[in-house]
Amino acid sequence: MEYENLTLHTDKYQINMMYAHWKNNSHNRKAVFDAYIRENPFHNGYTVFAGLERIVHYINNLHFTEDDIDYLKQQEEDYEPEFLDELRQFSFSGNIYSMREGEVVFPNEPLIRVEARIFEAQMIETALLNFMNYQSLIATKASRIKQVAEDDTLIEFGTRRAQEGDAAIWGARASYIAGFHATSNMRAGKLFNIPAKGTHAHSWIQDHDSEEQAFTNFAKALPDQAVLLVDTYDTLRSGIPNAIKTGKMLEAKGKKLKAIRLDSGDLARLSIEGRKMLDDAGMNHVEIMASNEVDDEVIMHLKMQGAQIDSWGVGTKLITGASKPSLGGVYKLVARENDNKLIPVIKLSEDLEKVSTPGPKKVYRIINRRTQKSEGDYIALAHETVDDKPLKMFDPFFPQKCKFVYDYEAIDLLKPIFVNGKQVYDLPALENIHQYHQRQLSHIWPETLRLLNPQTYYVDLSYELWKMKQEMMEEHSME
Amino acid sequence: MEYENLTLHTDKYQINMMYAHWKNNSHNRKAVFDAYIRENPFHNGYTVFAGLERIVHYINNLHFTEDDIDYLKQQEEDYEPEFLDELRQFSFSGNIYSMREGEVVFPNEPLIRVEARIFEAQMIETALLNFMNYQSLIATKASRIKQVAEDDTLIEFGTRRAQEGDAAIWGARASYIAGFHATSNMRAGKLFNIPAKGTHAHSWIQDHDSEEQAFTNFAKALPDQAVLLVDTYDTLRSGIPNAIKTGKMLEAKGKKLKAIRLDSGDLARLSIEGRKMLDDAGMNHVEIMASNEVDDEVIMHLKMQGAQIDSWGVGTKLITGASKPSLGGVYKLVARENDNKLIPVIKLSEDLEKVSTPGPKKVYRIINRRTQKSEGDYIALAHETVDDKPLKMFDPFFPQKCKFVYDYEAIDLLKPIFVNGKQVYDLPALENIHQYHQRQLSHIWPETLRLLNPQTYYVDLSYELWKMKQEMMEEHSME
Repeated sequence: MEYENLTLHTDKYQINMMYAHWKNNSHNRKAVFDAYIRENPFHNGYTVFAGLERIVHYINNLHFTEDDIDYLKQQEEDYEPEFLDELRQFSFSGNIYSMREGEVVFPNEPLIRVEARIFEAQMIETALLNFMNYQSLIATKASRIKQVAEDDTLIEFGTRRAQEGDAAIWGARASYIAGFHATSNMRAGKLFNIPAKGTHAHSWIQDHDSEEQAFTNFAKALPDQAVLLVDTYDTLRSGIPNAIKTGKMLEAKGKKLKAIRLDSGDLARLSIEGRKMLDDAGMNHVEIMASNEVDDEVIMHLKMQGAQIDSWGVGTKLITGASKPSLGGVYKLVARENDNKLIPVIKLSEDLEKVSTPGPKKVYRIINRRTQKSEGDYIALAHETVDDKPLKMFDPFFPQKCKFVYDYEAIDLLKPIFVNGKQVYDLPALENIHQYHQRQLSHIWPETLRLLNPQTYYVDLSYELWKMKQEMMEEHSME
Repeated sequence: MEYENLTLHTDKYQINMMYAHWKNNSHNRKAVFDAYIRENPFHNGYTVFAGLERIVHYINNLHFTEDDIDYLKQQEEDYEPEFLDELRQFSFSGNIYSMREGEVVFPNEPLIRVEARIFEAQMIETALLNFMNYQSLIATKASRIKQVAEDDTLIEFGTRRAQEGDAAIWGARASYIAGFHATSNMRAGKLFNIPAKGTHAHSWIQDHDSEEQAFTNFAKALPDQAVLLVDTYDTLRSGIPNAIKTGKMLEAKGKKLKAIRLDSGDLARLSIEGRKMLDDAGMNHVEIMASNEVDDEVIMHLKMQGAQIDSWGVGTKLITGASKPSLGGVYKLVARENDNKLIPVIKLSEDLEKVSTPGPKKVYRIINRRTQKSEGDYIALAHETVDDKPLKMFDPFFPQKCKFVYDYEAIDLLKPIFVNGKQVYDLPALENIHQYHQRQLSHIWPETLRLLNPQTYYVDLSYELWKMKQEMMEEHSME
């Protein structure tokens, strides 16, 4: 099975619309789509953008094989042979602008802008959202965990509870972007150059005649990285005393026990008692690792209780997004070609916040030169320039709420990724993406970053864009 | 990138344990592991088992490439060259017994039993759980939706909100097992032979000068399967009237409008009003399809309100499991080789329900010949036989709660899939898996199938197994 040919990884209705455009000879008309989110997940104040690397590979590899064509032919007798010929020649020939991975992004601003023949722009919607939505969700969850864990070591542990194979590896990568240090998944380690870390399971202990023998055998095999799981029988009466014995055995050989791991029970109490026992045995260097359904909330509470934990294995609640397992990113038409001209398009809704913002747009981050903090994002029409004049920023829903910004730098956030179908953007190394993320985070006020009731970040429209949107809304309401 | 080589799709700690076993020369010792769940998801009364096909492909393709070996060498200097040679020769040579896909299964019974060298059995844990957990979760969610939707058409619509690419396609397949009729994902359609269905998006309407023209153009292109999305502007004042006009246009050509689709607003009211408008126009044959964040709960409420909906597009809440996005399936050592003999192993826990059941086991479904309903599942040691004598079934936690079953058939649920590394099981076609599922469901009492507060299904132990478990628990508590 050719799982990795992702060309058919799209919704049937995209192919149906491509066919209908082709029948109506409108398939070569240009269209502009924005991919964006309407709210941050987890009631967070921001979202960490991820998924671009996957999207770039997907776009570069788009092509219908004869096998795909055969399938479509059987699937839908309506599809005419000339349409299938058109698909045989399909490749992406348009432009894609995107936020960089690791960018700190916000609702209602374009994260990806696709300019292409409607035939192409329509087809890529499904996969693009599939990748962007999941990876940004997990990067955001990881970012919350990172805020709470501060300088502790964070290891992604989620594969067995991940939603199938891809989620495990791309979720591991998204976590690394947001500040995780390692993953347990070896394939993710290899594919993305993430440090892979691991200890041993309860089964290691159970497969020996005694816990002590199990520890000794493990430590002898891997003397430089022995992390011993101490909760198989009784953590305080058996696990930690045996781990200390093993540590002494290693010391006699000039080696050091690296850590113990707690995977059940009261992590606060066990880590505090465990720390004392290790220290009393002269083993201050032995770290304590904890796992078992932890996430930002659990880690925060454990820290409040004085838990003595140096590193965290974070699984299920990270890799699935737990409380909010989907990011509702959408992909909306914002301009279409009519009589050889690109005209803006609006999508109305009874809910004002759901009305789309028309036209091809740029997103500027307005960095105050004095504070080095962002004053907000400023969305302007693609032809507008933001110069160094005082900038009036106002709430698009309450325009009377406004402020002037004087000494600022306006950073254009959407980078060209594909131009006329050619990749013009070099994919950065994962380490650089992580560093970029940290830098971008440093420009955001703590009020927006905090985990509970964060302050809403300004995402404002230029006056020209705002006026156009108002006029288009009025026009439609008079129809 | 070789995403599809899944050999490294395992946790680092598995490779570490494999190495430690190899160093201790215990890597060829036999081990038996059970994969099982501890609770049903969604407070459901049962779980629908899925994931086996994926696991079979995974097992058949296991091999370390030179590239993988190179990676391991760099990753871990401790790994000795002879260990890497051992990996070069790695393939699965053990036995796997499994529930069939579509089986109706319950907590605390083995769903998969792996008997192999500890070297192999350990390595496959991660991927096996990753696939089984996700696919069984989604099949179970789909089964709940199917119960509520009854004979309505169900289409899986979730790709853009799925947790990355694999979840989209394997989730579509899991939904089909439980009774969905189609998917929107073309790749899933092609790979698994699931009917692929689709309509058109709001962007189709927005890319035309008017809704009426958009409908006409779409219906002309696909006259035999036109499903028109009627909520872009105003469903009752514009969408449905325009759809009716298009229907009339099709009728003049001897064709029929297939359906209209509602994707926002009050689905109950709009579908009732819409049904009237269509019927008044003589279009009783035009179906009404609905989408927008529906699942079992929403569909049940809409039906209670008298909604006139014939088919459902189910997305986010199905493909992610929404309220419970992970199934906590585990993989526990139940027997190990010692002095050339296989000895049972138990994993204790302060929580009695979490204590594992030792030894290699069989699972019998006890079907009452008179009612054709199941009396419960009966777990016995692999060497025990269940003959036709009266069977005493008792609650393992309250042994005084017991019943006798007289006229029954005991069906052995765990089928041999691999024997000595060779696949001995023919993977059934997806359609047959779905039919098997329906048959198995028919043997379960409605009290267990109901969606709210289902009755707990009996999963009992044979007396011999129960006694052994009690003795092993006592032995350990006296240590």
